[in-house]
Amino acid sequence: MSDAISTRLNALVASMESHNLDAILLNPGSSLPYLSGLHFHISERPVVFALSKAGKVSIVLPELEKQKVTHCPYPISSFTYSEDVASWQKAFSAGLSFLASSGAKNVGIEPRSLRVLELRLIEDALPGVKLASCEALVASLRMRKDSDEIAQMKVAVDIAQKALLETLPHVKVGVSEREMAGLLIQNMLKFGSGGELPFQPIVAFGANSANPHAVPTDYKAKQGDMILFDWGANTNGYFSDLTRTFALGDPGETLKNAYAAVQAANAAGRNASKPGVTAGKVDDATRNEIVKAGFGPKFTHRTGHGLGLEVHEEPYIRAGNDAVLDVGMTFTVEPGVYLDGLGGIRIEDDMLITANGSESLSTLDRDLQILPL
Amino acid sequence: MSDAISTRLNALVASMESHNLDAILLNPGSSLPYLSGLHFHISERPVVFALSKAGKVSIVLPELEKQKVTHCPYPISSFTYSEDVASWQKAFSAGLSFLASSGAKNVGIEPRSLRVLELRLIEDALPGVKLASCEALVASLRMRKDSDEIAQMKVAVDIAQKALLETLPHVKVGVSEREMAGLLIQNMLKFGSGGELPFQPIVAFGANSANPHAVPTDYKAKQGDMILFDWGANTNGYFSDLTRTFALGDPGETLKNAYAAVQAANAAGRNASKPGVTAGKVDDATRNEIVKAGFGPKFTHRTGHGLGLEVHEEPYIRAGNDAVLDVGMTFTVEPGVYLDGLGGIRIEDDMLITANGSESLSTLDRDLQILPL
Repeated sequence: MSDAISTRLNALVASMESHNLDAILLNPGSSLPYLSGLHFHISERPVVFALSKAGKVSIVLPELEKQKVTHCPYPISSFTYSEDVASWQKAFSAGLSFLASSGAKNVGIEPRSLRVLELRLIEDALPGVKLASCEALVASLRMRKDSDEIAQMKVAVDIAQKALLETLPHVKVGVSEREMAGLLIQNMLKFGSGGELPFQPIVAFGANSANPHAVPTDYKAKQGDMILFDWGANTNGYFSDLTRTFALGDPGETLKNAYAAVQAANAAGRNASKPGVTAGKVDDATRNEIVKAGFGPKFTHRTGHGLGLEVHEEPYIRAGNDAVLDVGMTFTVEPGVYLDGLGGIRIEDDMLITANGSESLSTLDRDLQILPL
Repeated sequence: MSDAISTRLNALVASMESHNLDAILLNPGSSLPYLSGLHFHISERPVVFALSKAGKVSIVLPELEKQKVTHCPYPISSFTYSEDVASWQKAFSAGLSFLASSGAKNVGIEPRSLRVLELRLIEDALPGVKLASCEALVASLRMRKDSDEIAQMKVAVDIAQKALLETLPHVKVGVSEREMAGLLIQNMLKFGSGGELPFQPIVAFGANSANPHAVPTDYKAKQGDMILFDWGANTNGYFSDLTRTFALGDPGETLKNAYAAVQAANAAGRNASKPGVTAGKVDDATRNEIVKAGFGPKFTHRTGHGLGLEVHEEPYIRAGNDAVLDVGMTFTVEPGVYLDGLGGIRIEDDMLITANGSESLSTLDRDLQILPL
């Protein structure tokens, strides 16, 4: 594991010159543990990790958390500040001075992680330096999972699947979305998920399932309702993200037809996933099935998103995305059809691009299951 | 509840003029639900809420989430963008144009929440506008909890306390920190906590408890270990945050003395908490007890932090903080003593400032309990 982390850092350093980057600055987020093995939460206390193109590394952090730095597998200089906010700028100026003195001009940051809090401290420590996004560069490394990462993701999928199978027998007329969401979380923990789930499970019944981002409510399941679960587990920071939709008794013809369209779309998206194909083409393959079935306007979101240390990361499986799929990439295929007032269906799998095509890490049955009342 | 939200917004609008603010911009974080009732996660898709000093409100958000806006209790204009990143800037420029056309010059932001992602979109939409922190202003409102908020926090404390009492009988020689952390989480969910916990519980045994920010490991409890739990529940977004420390069999004289010092410090901090006293004085009262007992250098952090929609918020109970405690403020008092290689002790309560003094929302026993092996 610590070898893997050093390998990642070296790969990043090797690519900085060609991206015209003299340094990279990261705050807590998912790139920081990926490149350093260090886990920090984003908090009111700023933490910044600095990497020069010479491969020199420093970190600015609260005194209180300095013990954590021992988990970094390579040499790193620490610069700590006290509980007095007035001590922050001094620590940042000291911690980033090796970049200033080495003449760093172009410095990469991640705009989706870095806050104005850290930005202003960095700007004061490195006046005149040009800050630009290095998200694409870091993502190009993170997208291609190594064997250690794939192993973690397989465990996260396995935990999620077991947890759903343990929860499903409790779904019956009269149970609430909130009750089933709580039970599902408990079951994920029981099967070994880390407590920081990738997201709070979506458990949506009946008309609520027509909202792709529904939050569990006290609504109680009724006969004929669609029963939608969108959930995932955490294994050492690596996530799974699955969706399955069931019916509680007969849902009627319209929803059955919509289900068939989503099932065909899910299969088409999985089959289209292979090395050399663009993300856009996978979205096309998926969407075509739903359009053919006449539900095109009811598939209101992209086909999927990359998955790993973040629940949404590169590659995004959306129309027109020219990003080319490559071995080691992991992403979701999750077509859906949402019928206002009636219900929604989504079937989501976690895909891994392999040398010969792709593998669905998730294997739960995709046929429509009618649950007993 | 919706009345409370409108009242908060009106209070903010009323105070903007005197703070020389023409507008305030918020991204997802805890001030947004506080002021709008709208819950968004921070994600790769930027969301920004804009409020003018005339009380006009708009929000820029992904098309996919536009349904959520119906939960806002007052009129709000929505500006949505599609899954195409190129559509973001247009939505931001449209959504913020009412500020530009009203001549807004000084605009408040929250540097601890706002990311460079949103910052650049805002800067492009409002060229020439001066962005400054409005954190202190928003915090001055959020610090003083209304009766609705206090009721939620009491429930969150109650859930956490019940969950610990349900977990404690399972602690014995040979159980791991990770097992007990999982059980504690399950018990919080069982007693009604929302799934998004304020933080992952710290469960630390023996020498591990000497790290104030320990993460649960596979270490198994041994006779004589200190057994530290630092955990909290979530009730509709409001948090509790408690710590109790036990001993598994006799921990020896040094740790017993340290425990007594921490217990005295916790009591002193609670007793010092009353309206009109500065946060710094509460830290002094707490710290003095530990210094008197000879453990001063082993109390390595501040006495506590505000608590509410965030697990760390104003007022911070730290040395030298001149912030004056006022009715409705809620914060932790959590002194600790950390003895490297031996173990740590922390006792943390959640305090509410009342007209007559203060109330500890948490009531779990604070005497040293020796757990059976």
